[in-house]
Amino acid sequence: MPKGATALKTLADRFARIPGIGRKTAQRMAYYLISLPREESAALAAAITDACEKVHRCKICCDLTEDEVCAVCSDERRDRGIICVVEQPQDLLAIERTREYQGVYHVLHGAISPLDGIGPDQITVKELMARIAEGGVREVIMATDSDTEGETTAMYLSRMMKPFGVKVTRLAYGIPVGSDLQYADEITLSRAIAGRRDM
Amino acid sequence: MPKGATALKTLADRFARIPGIGRKTAQRMAYYLISLPREESAALAAAITDACEKVHRCKICCDLTEDEVCAVCSDERRDRGIICVVEQPQDLLAIERTREYQGVYHVLHGAISPLDGIGPDQITVKELMARIAEGGVREVIMATDSDTEGETTAMYLSRMMKPFGVKVTRLAYGIPVGSDLQYADEITLSRAIAGRRDM
Repeated sequence: MPKGATALKTLADRFARIPGIGRKTAQRMAYYLISLPREESAALAAAITDACEKVHRCKICCDLTEDEVCAVCSDERRDRGIICVVEQPQDLLAIERTREYQGVYHVLHGAISPLDGIGPDQITVKELMARIAEGGVREVIMATDSDTEGETTAMYLSRMMKPFGVKVTRLAYGIPVGSDLQYADEITLSRAIAGRRDM
Repeated sequence: MPKGATALKTLADRFARIPGIGRKTAQRMAYYLISLPREESAALAAAITDACEKVHRCKICCDLTEDEVCAVCSDERRDRGIICVVEQPQDLLAIERTREYQGVYHVLHGAISPLDGIGPDQITVKELMARIAEGGVREVIMATDSDTEGETTAMYLSRMMKPFGVKVTRLAYGIPVGSDLQYADEITLSRAIAGRRDM
């Protein structure tokens, strides 16, 4: 960054804090933004503030929404007897894109990972168990990632649900092992839903 | 994006407009930002506004600065008789990192590219010629990129400067230091042979 252009450096540094954004990309982004017409860059700043203010968790499934209850949870046609448990909102989107799943969701916002200090209390396990305890749930589909953390989380939740007599299933291993769920293609994901197994 | 979370989609769409940021990266950035503590995301929004308000072009060399005149131009120790012409502020930084160049700069903010509709009026040619016309410049080093646009720009500026009797030089072409000769492309190698020096 040019000496004296500390505001530019500050901006690039902030971008570089975003996971997946390297120092070079952050710098390029900063340079690009200041080259934009003032309205454009102001609109981006406003979009950040706006999104962070308006978007919060659905009070039922913990997915992100601007309303009190998200679109899926407030949709009368969805089957409230089946809950699909995912790690991230992006995972929910991936499943929605298959247009096959008719149940509702629960977004954990993470996976149990003792090494990273993430236990059940750091994700929305309490909220999920409250939904199960309320009754009316026939099946819970564990659609956590197929990596160690996702498996651990699925196992943990499965054991927690045993006392409630709820059928717990796991996405079939059609999804490539060790990969991120949100990047799975629709067909693989559809197959994985269709081939889900008891656990 | 979740239906109903349009603010999130708006934010991701804005990020996706930045060159080099794909749709997936933009989406990940948006999700990451709303997951941050409110102060953090507000700080990024403020950094954007701040940088765009404070950073502008140096009135002498057109590099980016927060002051009227940039750090290089206001440094008494720099030789104002030599101007190094670069396309982008990042190019200037690269040259500064060598700690060898003691002259001053001129940032074009682009290169002549008729196919992209960029002529001399879209870059800071007028500002450069005004500096030359003022007198006192002994040498102008063309440090534009070695691609077609950079070459065209260097040739164009060189011709513009002829009437002023200024010495115009071009960065040497050759094989990159520390690289394997066998991997050098033919054009680079031809230029390296043509530009060989006594040792």
